[in-house]
Amino acid sequence: YVALIHYPVVNKNGDTIASAVTPMDLHDISRAAKTFGAAGVFAVTPLKDQQRLMETLMSHWTEGAGGVYNPKRREALSLVRVVPTLEDAGERIRLVHGREPVTVATAARRRDRVIGYAALKRKMADHRPYLLMFGTAWGMTDASIMAADEILAPIEGPGTYNHLSVRSAVSIILDRLLGGAGE
Amino acid sequence: YVALIHYPVVNKNGDTIASAVTPMDLHDISRAAKTFGAAGVFAVTPLKDQQRLMETLMSHWTEGAGGVYNPKRREALSLVRVVPTLEDAGERIRLVHGREPVTVATAARRRDRVIGYAALKRKMADHRPYLLMFGTAWGMTDASIMAADEILAPIEGPGTYNHLSVRSAVSIILDRLLGGAGE
Repeated sequence: YVALIHYPVVNKNGDTIASAVTPMDLHDISRAAKTFGAAGVFAVTPLKDQQRLMETLMSHWTEGAGGVYNPKRREALSLVRVVPTLEDAGERIRLVHGREPVTVATAARRRDRVIGYAALKRKMADHRPYLLMFGTAWGMTDASIMAADEILAPIEGPGTYNHLSVRSAVSIILDRLLGGAGE
Repeated sequence: YVALIHYPVVNKNGDTIASAVTPMDLHDISRAAKTFGAAGVFAVTPLKDQQRLMETLMSHWTEGAGGVYNPKRREALSLVRVVPTLEDAGERIRLVHGREPVTVATAARRRDRVIGYAALKRKMADHRPYLLMFGTAWGMTDASIMAADEILAPIEGPGTYNHLSVRSAVSIILDRLLGGAGE
């Protein structure tokens, strides 16, 4: 499972904020989730108007004219559930699987306690549900990163620049954990 | 090098079209290119108004208020050059490197003649310039795919769904070819 978190996240100055929904996040992330076989995507926001906005966007593509025009988007967006908090995402997973998910935080900056991609991939073979958490805006808060069961190593290139969009980060991480890695 | 092609590409019905620029493509793809150490990004469109739109967008972030607000976007977008055709991209690369780039087409559908990721990564160690080409809309035309020096194997997940956004596809492919693959 993937959680796309709009609250609590940090802004540029490190303050905790609720970010606004970016429709393209839902499209790109649900398509990547569908491609790599994730079980579901939770869009997390406690703001009622943002929840309504997401539901409207999704119903256009899943039930409305958009779904007829482009059934591939419908198929992907039907993976998305809007929930007010991360705890609600955990609760929904518990209802389906009968156990809590293992929560995995992602962050662009390296922390002391991180798990690598190969190690997490091996661990995920235990058939427990896993919830990969991604912060929008400038990322997850320190408190929510530290509260996670695991903290995934950041995506690093050859240099020091590591300012990927959340859409890119989700795509790369799903590929590394669930993709075939190509031939 | 990465080429983001807006013409010639195909639409849903397979007709050759010129697609409209999606500003988020330039942001996401330039940030991924910067992260993974690509030498440059060519945004390819022969349409003058679309070229102007891209230049305006980029100058906001590279010279205007956006660059002050978010220098990380400036750093990424400064990799982008707007060119009218793929041939112009090739010519610019030739001027810098003294030789033609090896052109690599990408496509979501598997073709007979494809190169895998490990094989292309080994090949790229020859220090020639490589131009990875991505089609917007429904992808590159068959003619431009077949004209490429190499055709990269599609990104495949465990299932049959493979409708990634071009932003996701560029991110994953740069990670596979230039990323550290994580620990």
